[in-house]
Amino acid sequence: MSDRPLIALALGDPAGIGNELAVKALSDAETFDAADWIVIGDRRLWARGEEQSGLTLDLPDFAPGRFDHAAFIDLGHADMDAITTGSSTEAGGRVAVRNFATALKLAAAGGADAVTFTPFNKHAMRLADPSYVDEIGFVQREIETDAPGSEFNVLDEVWNARVTSHVPLSKVAELITPERLARAIRLTHDTMEGAGIRAPRIGVAALNPHAGDGGNFGTEDDAIIAPAVEAARLKQYRVAGPIPSDTVYVRALKGEFDAVLTMYHDQGQIAMKLIGFDRGVTLIGGFPFWIATPAHGTAYDIAGKGEANPGAAIQALKLAARLSRRSNPDGFADPAARLEAAHGVLAPAE
Amino acid sequence: MSDRPLIALALGDPAGIGNELAVKALSDAETFDAADWIVIGDRRLWARGEEQSGLTLDLPDFAPGRFDHAAFIDLGHADMDAITTGSSTEAGGRVAVRNFATALKLAAAGGADAVTFTPFNKHAMRLADPSYVDEIGFVQREIETDAPGSEFNVLDEVWNARVTSHVPLSKVAELITPERLARAIRLTHDTMEGAGIRAPRIGVAALNPHAGDGGNFGTEDDAIIAPAVEAARLKQYRVAGPIPSDTVYVRALKGEFDAVLTMYHDQGQIAMKLIGFDRGVTLIGGFPFWIATPAHGTAYDIAGKGEANPGAAIQALKLAARLSRRSNPDGFADPAARLEAAHGVLAPAE
Repeated sequence: MSDRPLIALALGDPAGIGNELAVKALSDAETFDAADWIVIGDRRLWARGEEQSGLTLDLPDFAPGRFDHAAFIDLGHADMDAITTGSSTEAGGRVAVRNFATALKLAAAGGADAVTFTPFNKHAMRLADPSYVDEIGFVQREIETDAPGSEFNVLDEVWNARVTSHVPLSKVAELITPERLARAIRLTHDTMEGAGIRAPRIGVAALNPHAGDGGNFGTEDDAIIAPAVEAARLKQYRVAGPIPSDTVYVRALKGEFDAVLTMYHDQGQIAMKLIGFDRGVTLIGGFPFWIATPAHGTAYDIAGKGEANPGAAIQALKLAARLSRRSNPDGFADPAARLEAAHGVLAPAE
Repeated sequence: MSDRPLIALALGDPAGIGNELAVKALSDAETFDAADWIVIGDRRLWARGEEQSGLTLDLPDFAPGRFDHAAFIDLGHADMDAITTGSSTEAGGRVAVRNFATALKLAAAGGADAVTFTPFNKHAMRLADPSYVDEIGFVQREIETDAPGSEFNVLDEVWNARVTSHVPLSKVAELITPERLARAIRLTHDTMEGAGIRAPRIGVAALNPHAGDGGNFGTEDDAIIAPAVEAARLKQYRVAGPIPSDTVYVRALKGEFDAVLTMYHDQGQIAMKLIGFDRGVTLIGGFPFWIATPAHGTAYDIAGKGEANPGAAIQALKLAARLSRRSNPDGFADPAARLEAAHGVLAPAE
C-alpha cells in the first residue's frame, strides 16, 4: 500500500502556458511530494515547458511494471510545425483533447485516483473535436457515464457551485427550478462531505438584484429559491438564502459560509476571479475520480515568456491530492501494479 | 464668491446608521472643510446620531440671511415614538422621504450644488410613499424633470455604469439594445468628462459567460454589444468590449479602464462590493446637480451601536464636493445669499 494517491496530469493547450505551468507546478517540492504523478503529453512539448520555465524536471518514460513516484507517458502525437505559441489551432486542440481523453481513460481503468490538467483553449478543442462543448460533457462521453458531474470553483476555503453554467444569460431564469436547486444543494453538500468537509454551510445566491426586492425586480427569489432553501433546510442541509449576490461573497469571505451556490456562471466567477485570480481551482466532482485544473485560461498573451504564475496550477494539483486522500482513507494500492493493470488504455487510438 | 460648493446632506432612514454616519462624516475635518453644508432632518434624530457616534457637532439652525459654513434645517417632522432602531417603519420612511425631497427642491432652486444623503431603506420609503421605486424616479418627480438620470458606482478611481439596473434578471437580455448601449456609453463618457475625467476609457462587460463563447452561450455579445462598441469607437469614444464580465474588473483594477459599463445590476455590484464594501459611492448624474450617497445600505443589524464605518459616507460627501467644484470652475456665489433666495422651498409641505 502507498500513502500517496496516483494522479494523472494531462498537459493542456500547447500554444498557451500549459506546458510551462506543468513544469513549474511539479517542480514545487511540496506539490511533487503530495502524490505520485503520471504526466500525459508529448515529450517535445514538455521540453518546451522546461525551456519556457527555465526549469528541468527529468521524468522517466512510463514502462509497464516500472514506476517510481513519477513518469511521463509520451503520446508523441503533436504536429509540432502546426502549433504556434499564442494561437488557437486545430493541431493544439488535438494534442490537448487526446491528453485529456487518455488521462480520463487511465483513471476510469483504475490507473489514477484523480485527473488534473493545465488550461485548455475551448476554440482549439472544438477545431479538433467539433462535438466538444465543455469538460463535463467530454468526461461523460470518454468514460461512458451518465453520472451528473458537477463543477465547483474552489478558492482558499470557499467553494462555488452553480445551478446553471454555460448557458445564455437570457435562459438562466427559466432554468432555476425547484428540482435543479434541490439537486445542486445536494450535490454541493455531498461533494464537500466527500472532500472531508463535514456539514458544509451553503449560502444560496439570489437571482435578481436585491433578491428581487420583494417582487419589484423579479419574482423567482421569493417564489422559487426561498422555498427550495427552506425545503433543503428541513432536510437538515445547512443552507441560507436567497442572499443578494453582491453580498453573499462578502459574507462567505468573512467565514459565514463554506460554499456559495450561484444561479449563473458570472455571478460566481466575477467574485472568484477578483478574490484570487492566481489561486482559484476548478474542480469537477460527481465522477468516480476527482478532476481539477486551474480556474484561469491559457493566457495566450504571455505564453512562451516564462511569466506564467503557477499558483493556481499548484493549488489544483494539491487539491486533487488532498481530496483523493480523503476519498481513500485506507491508502492506495501499489502504483506500479495499478498502472500495469490499466495501461491497456494507452494503446494508440488513432 | 466662495471657493466652496454648497452641499445639502439629507439624513437617511433614522432606524439605520444614517444619523450616526452623518455626524461621523461631518466630524471628519477634511470632509467638513471640503464644502459648505446644509444638513436636513429632525434635530432629535441628529442628537441620536451624536449619541450613537459619541461625537458632538454643533450646527446652528438655519435662518434666512445668516449662514457660516454649515447649518441645520430642522423639519421637526419625526414621529419619534414610531421609529424603532433596526426596524423598517413607515414613520422612518416618512422622515427620509421628506428629508430627501427637501434637499432636492433646495438644490433645484439653486440652494445647493449637490445633494448627498445617508442610506435609505427602500421598504420604509415605500411604506411612506407607495409610488417610490428608486432614487432616479423620485428625483425626476420631485424636481419635475424628464432628464434621464444615470446612476454610477464610484470606487477609488473606477466608475461603474449599467445599461440595466433594477429589473428582473430574466428581462435583462431583451433590454440590451444598440440604442441603450449607445446612450449608456455616451452618458458615461459625458458624465465623467463633466467630472473632469478627460476622454475616459470605458470597458464594456459582456452579457453572457465567456462573452458568449462565439455564440455557444448566447448571441448578444457578438450580435449587439460588439457592433455597438465598434460604432462608439468610430465616434471617438475610448471604449473596448465586450469583455467577459469575470475579467473586466480585474483589468480595470490594473488601470486599463476608468469605467466599466455593465449590462445588469449585480454584474457590477458583485465586483464593487468585494473590492471596497467600505468605500463605494453611488453617484447620480444627468440632473442639474450631482447626487451622491454611500453605496451600502442602512445596516439595521449594527444600527445604534456606534460601530458604523463612515468611510463610504465620507467618500460620498467628498466626491460630491470635488465634482461640484469641477462643474463650477469659476467658483460659487455667496451661500447665505443663495440660501436666502432658495429657502422658500422649505415651507411646510404638509
